[in-house]
This record gives sequence, C-alpha cells and structure tokens, in this order.
Amino acid sequence: MKAEIITIGDELLIGQVIDTNSAWLGQQLSLLGISLYQRTACGDSKEHILSCLKDAENRSDIIIITGGLGPTKDDITKKTMCEYFNTTLVTDEKVLEWVTRIFRMRKMEMLETNLQQAMIPAISKTLWNRSGTAPGMWFDINNKIFISLPGVPFEMKTIFEEEAIPLIKNKFTLPFIYHRTLQTCSIGESYLAEKIIDIEETLPHHIKLAYLPSVGAVRLRLSAQGNNESEVINDVATIVNKMYERIGEYIYGENNDSLSEVVGKLLTNKNKTLATAESCTGGFIAHQITSNPGSSKYFTGSIISYDNKIKQQELNVSNTILSNDGAVSEACVKQMATEILSKFNVDYAIATSGIAGPDGGSEEKPIGTVWIAVASKNEVITKKFNMGDNRERTILRTSISALDMLRKMIL
Amino acid sequence: MKAEIITIGDELLIGQVIDTNSAWLGQQLSLLGISLYQRTACGDSKEHILSCLKDAENRSDIIIITGGLGPTKDDITKKTMCEYFNTTLVTDEKVLEWVTRIFRMRKMEMLETNLQQAMIPAISKTLWNRSGTAPGMWFDINNKIFISLPGVPFEMKTIFEEEAIPLIKNKFTLPFIYHRTLQTCSIGESYLAEKIIDIEETLPHHIKLAYLPSVGAVRLRLSAQGNNESEVINDVATIVNKMYERIGEYIYGENNDSLSEVVGKLLTNKNKTLATAESCTGGFIAHQITSNPGSSKYFTGSIISYDNKIKQQELNVSNTILSNDGAVSEACVKQMATEILSKFNVDYAIATSGIAGPDGGSEEKPIGTVWIAVASKNEVITKKFNMGDNRERTILRTSISALDMLRKMIL
Repeated sequence: MKAEIITIGDELLIGQVIDTNSAWLGQQLSLLGISLYQRTACGDSKEHILSCLKDAENRSDIIIITGGLGPTKDDITKKTMCEYFNTTLVTDEKVLEWVTRIFRMRKMEMLETNLQQAMIPAISKTLWNRSGTAPGMWFDINNKIFISLPGVPFEMKTIFEEEAIPLIKNKFTLPFIYHRTLQTCSIGESYLAEKIIDIEETLPHHIKLAYLPSVGAVRLRLSAQGNNESEVINDVATIVNKMYERIGEYIYGENNDSLSEVVGKLLTNKNKTLATAESCTGGFIAHQITSNPGSSKYFTGSIISYDNKIKQQELNVSNTILSNDGAVSEACVKQMATEILSKFNVDYAIATSGIAGPDGGSEEKPIGTVWIAVASKNEVITKKFNMGDNRERTILRTSISALDMLRKMIL
Repeated sequence: MKAEIITIGDELLIGQVIDTNSAWLGQQLSLLGISLYQRTACGDSKEHILSCLKDAENRSDIIIITGGLGPTKDDITKKTMCEYFNTTLVTDEKVLEWVTRIFRMRKMEMLETNLQQAMIPAISKTLWNRSGTAPGMWFDINNKIFISLPGVPFEMKTIFEEEAIPLIKNKFTLPFIYHRTLQTCSIGESYLAEKIIDIEETLPHHIKLAYLPSVGAVRLRLSAQGNNESEVINDVATIVNKMYERIGEYIYGENNDSLSEVVGKLLTNKNKTLATAESCTGGFIAHQITSNPGSSKYFTGSIISYDNKIKQQELNVSNTILSNDGAVSEACVKQMATEILSKFNVDYAIATSGIAGPDGGSEEKPIGTVWIAVASKNEVITKKFNMGDNRERTILRTSISALDMLRKMIL
C-alpha cells in the first residue's frame, strides 16, 4: 500500500507559501498505516499535472492531489482531472445549494465562477466541504484511488478527516504503522549514534531508526510496522527501554514534547516556581517558557540585565566581580542566579551571561563563550560553554542548555 | 532554464518535519531568474533517490538535492550520488582539517563517522560549509548541474548563498531580474490593496506586484525584468515613490529589514536607549531586540513582570490599579512604562500587558485583549488591541505593534 501527494500551485514553487499541507497529510497517512512514497509539487500547468498524475498512478495506490480548486483562472485541477479520466463536469445539486446558501449568508453576489464551484467530474464522488465552497473529489478507477482536495489548509483537513479517511478505511485493509520519538539534547548526533550503535545494528527487521538533528537537539524516531498492533507497540517499547538505559540522561521527552514544556510540567507537578536573570539570551529563555499555556502558574518573571549597570543595580553584581572576573564569568552568573532567586522569591532560577557576537570576543573569552548558572534554595550549579560564532544559534543553544540543566536539577 | 529540488528524508514524508528549505530555495531561484519546475520529496531509499535523480535530469538543467548528508547510517545521499555518477568517495583534505579543527575547538573526540564527513565524490567540487561539518557538492556533468546540500536549514542556506549562487551565476547567463520589497505592518492585506488599487492596476507590463502576508505584517514585492539594468531600477523606483506617498506611514523598511532592526538603527543613530517592561509578551520583545548584533549599545534591559507581585514589587504598580483596573489596563501599562523608564534611566520604554490565552479571558476582557504603552521622557502613548485567540500569534502581533508604536514615536 503506497500513497503519493501531488501539490499544485505556482505559489509553492516560488516559495511564497510554505507547504504545511503535505506534512499534515503525511502524518495522517502514517497514522493510518499507509506509507507515503513520494511528494511532488508542480505548477499550474495542465501538461505538467497530467504527467505527474500518470507517474504517480504507475507507482502508487492512493494519489492525493491538493490545490487548484479555487474560482480563479489559474485553478485548473478539475478540468485537468476530467481530461485525465476522459470525463466531463456535471453540477452537483447539493453542492450548488450549499454554495448558494453560503453566498446568501455572507450577503455577497454569486458570480459565474462561483457556480462552477458546484461542478464535479461525472465519474467522481463528491467529498463534502463543510468549511468552504470547493468540494473534494474521490475517484476509484481500476483499483487506484485519486483524492482531490482544496489547498486551503483548514478546508483540506476537514474534508480529509471527515470524508476521505472513512472511505479509505472502507476500501483497504491496512497494516499497522507505529512511531515513537525520543527527544534528546546536550549531546551531538554522532556521539549519540556511537553510544547506541549496537542497539541500532541489532534492530529487528520491522523497526527502523532515524536521527533528526536540529540546533542543540536530536530526535530519535523509531518506526515499526506489523499486523499485530500490541506486538508492534511492545517491540518498540523494548528498544525504547534499552535506549533509556543507555542514553536516558539525554532524553528530555517524547514525540512532540518541547524542552520548555517538559520543564514547565515538572514545575507544575512539583508546585515549584521559576525566574530568570538573563544577559546574553536577552529574554529568549523567558520567551520559551511563556510560550507555553499555563506558564503564569510557575513562571514569576525575569530581569534582563543586558547592560552591566543593570547587573549591578538590579542583581547586586559587585564592582569587584565585574572588574576582576568580568560579566561573562562564573562569579557573575552565580550572583545573578542567587539574587533573582531571593529577589523574586522563587524555587529555581536560571542565569546566563555570554558573548553572542559578532563583536566583544577576546582571546581569553572568544565569541560563543557562555556561562550558565542554575540555582535552587539548596545549590547553585554553573557551567561554561562554547556555543560557536553564530549569534542566533548561541542564543538558542544557551537556552536549551540552561533549560536542560534546570530539568536535571529538578529531577 | 529549469530547476528542480529533490528533498531526501523519511521525516519529510511522515510529516515530522515541515519542509521550509524548498520554499526558501524556490525564493532564491526565483530571485536569480531561474524557474523552479518541480519539487520532489522522497524517502531514505537508494533506489528511489536514483530514480528521482534520473527523472529530474531528463526534465531540468539544475537539480538541487537537500538532506541525507549527516554522519549516521540513514544518511545515504553521498553514496547514492557516487553510484549515480559511477564515482567513488575521496577525502577532501581541507574539509578534513576544518572538521578536525571544529572538534578540537569544541573539545570533542573525532569519531570514525566524523572523518567520513570530509569525504566527497571524486568528480564533484566541494561547496564549503562554514556553518557545519557536512560540505555541499557541485556536479557539472554533461551540462547538467547537480547541487547536493545538507538538510539542516542554516547550513543549507549558508552553502547555497556563499558557494552555489556564485557558481550558478558564473555558469549560466541569467536575465536581469530586479526585486524591491516594501515591509509594512499595522495594516491588513485587503486594506493595503484597497489603498493602492490604482497603482497596481496601472503597473507597467514589465513590473509585477506580489502581496506576501505574514502574522501582523505584509510585504509588497515589486519584481521587474528587462535588459537595461538602470532603466529597470528607475522604473521600480518610480512605483516605490508612489507607494511611499500613499502608504508611507505603514512602511517600516525595505527588503530584508526586520522591524526590531529598524528600531535599533533609529536608536543607534539618535544615540538613544531603550528598556522594556513586559507581561504578556514574556520577554519576546527583548528577545527580538537582542537578536540584532550591536543591540547592547542601545538596549539596557527588561523587567518581565509575569506575576502581578513582580509588577508591584519591581514596577511600582499600585494595589489600587491592580484591583480597580486590573493588570490588563491602560493604567497598568502606563505605570509599567514610566517606571522602567526612570528605573533603568533610558530614553524610551515599552510596556505590555494582555491575555494571551487560552485561559484568563472574560466577557469584559476576552482572550487577545492587549494594552501597550510606549514612553519617552516627554510623553506616554497607550493603545488597546484585540490580537485574537491564538497565544503564539498574540505574542508576535503585540511585539510588532509595540515596536511600530516606538518607531513612530522616535520618528
């Protein structure tokens, strides 16, 4: 059972729109146990669409087409599907009634082009669009399924979930595909690979492992296929347990967990509070934390002491520290963390100070030098890093390292 | 001149990663005057990659391949390229030296897999990767160009901009295409369109206008093509001047300017300083400002008063204000802005307070209600907004509105 996606529209090719539909459809197919073989994006050209359809039909069982169903001249999917299947457009009376009602409700005049929204290829089945005027279409021809959907994300999603999925489940007997992802940080991809090389090399045939690196983090995704659902889940759990034994200290969460979310949950569960005193991260850690709904329960606030005067005035960093050790020093972040802890009366505190660049580096403290302190009422842990010479990534990496240090302290 | 993109990786097909690389590359190609014919995403399978390469070579002149260059077992692009071109991997000594240096600087041990990062197909030219350990590759075979790039976005972008574009420009004679983009905010797409409808309708034939909306902002891109470079530039300037006359108050910058960068430049030029007192934005405005190199010259710091106790303790917001007006009120942001202005002894201050949701809304103050204050030593301006019911977008929109209010005050 293989599927393909064909996305239609010049706006995708010139990069005016980022294609989020395909990722969503890929997730849905994967949850259904259908593997997505290929994704193809093509422009608003009849010949090109026809050749993409032919190629996809030769390779796969289900072909999902998105886009090109709107009312304007560059929307040619329906006519092209008619040509491909040698059929003609007919009016779907129920859709016509629906479209007319929508226009009446919005007090807008129906144009000729809007009437065309209610026409579908004679050999297709209408997929009802509760969220808009362009219906989807289902073609079942010689045991190959073609599903045509609008490109507008929420309309596409509604039709696929409510109309297409039931028809797919009815048509095919599907295998079970299961994914489980481990979120790691504070270790590079190759070190991680080295640590679990024997686990990877002895993976059972039906389980695959993928490394998905991003700045400061690596996700490990296990994907397994089989007929017996609980067996597959158990097989993956066995591998996951081995992973936790081997690299557990680097795993901060699973699947779609974010690090700030995981830290937030730990704080919530233990009924603890947090504040930050940030210099080089300039508020990014506070932003990461407050991106999570409900963060006001555990996050009290921050002092961003970008200027050394603010470090002195608000965080009581002494002249001695600033002149002897400098702002980027263990002594400085230690003072920042302990001061914000007591000043904001919280259970945990994070402090950062570093040289994000591109200016400000020296031989002794090159660009990318960062000190982080994490404090509780019982202890202060400090750590020095070199985060490299890119400002944006230094801020991001510092934020990840600081949150991970805090996570480990809370645990 | 046609180009194609092939993206490699199971994570794209199962929708774990949204493909932003393709959109960025599509934009770059379009800026170069090269039209992108097709984009294909395929999994980590040798046979599939080989067939995608063959198909793309038959259709197009430039084939860009992203992904599969990491050090782990599922990264098979290099080996597959070798098989496709019937060549072998050889060590690039300069890359080896670079990779070794990176590992030494980070004080990390070199593994066997890291040494492989320095190997490239014998017939390819190395595209230097200043941002990481995986080099890009350039193949010029029978007048077809293949460019292989890592999947990590910032590495891909660095290599394409610094290495691939000059080689492409050298290899092909490209038409002269000129783009100029006006960055607007604080006005919606359709209102903007309404204001400039006559300019748009009377555009000369060789100039096109595109609306590129994003959360809280709309970019207007003028693209012109022609043989006489200075004529084309002048023609666009004429339209741009008309735009400034008509909608100048909404234009905060051009091309790649960001709003925080523009504000930063204004502060630098006028030798003025800034601090923020943030509640609902939780440090995001400070982060936006400190993302810009050199921001330590004008940005002093922030107090993030997420908890009302911090608003009282650090920003002197009175009990009366909190109980009569509430934290989300004009009186509260006014006090926050004036207090941070004097406390941090700066020329300008921004204060925000709002309900980002999903909890905390009421009939009187629904989710999305935000108050912003911008203060100088002479005046305080306040404004109330409804930013909608999405937490992430409310934070982003509030940041844009606040920075735009400050921009106008400084001007």
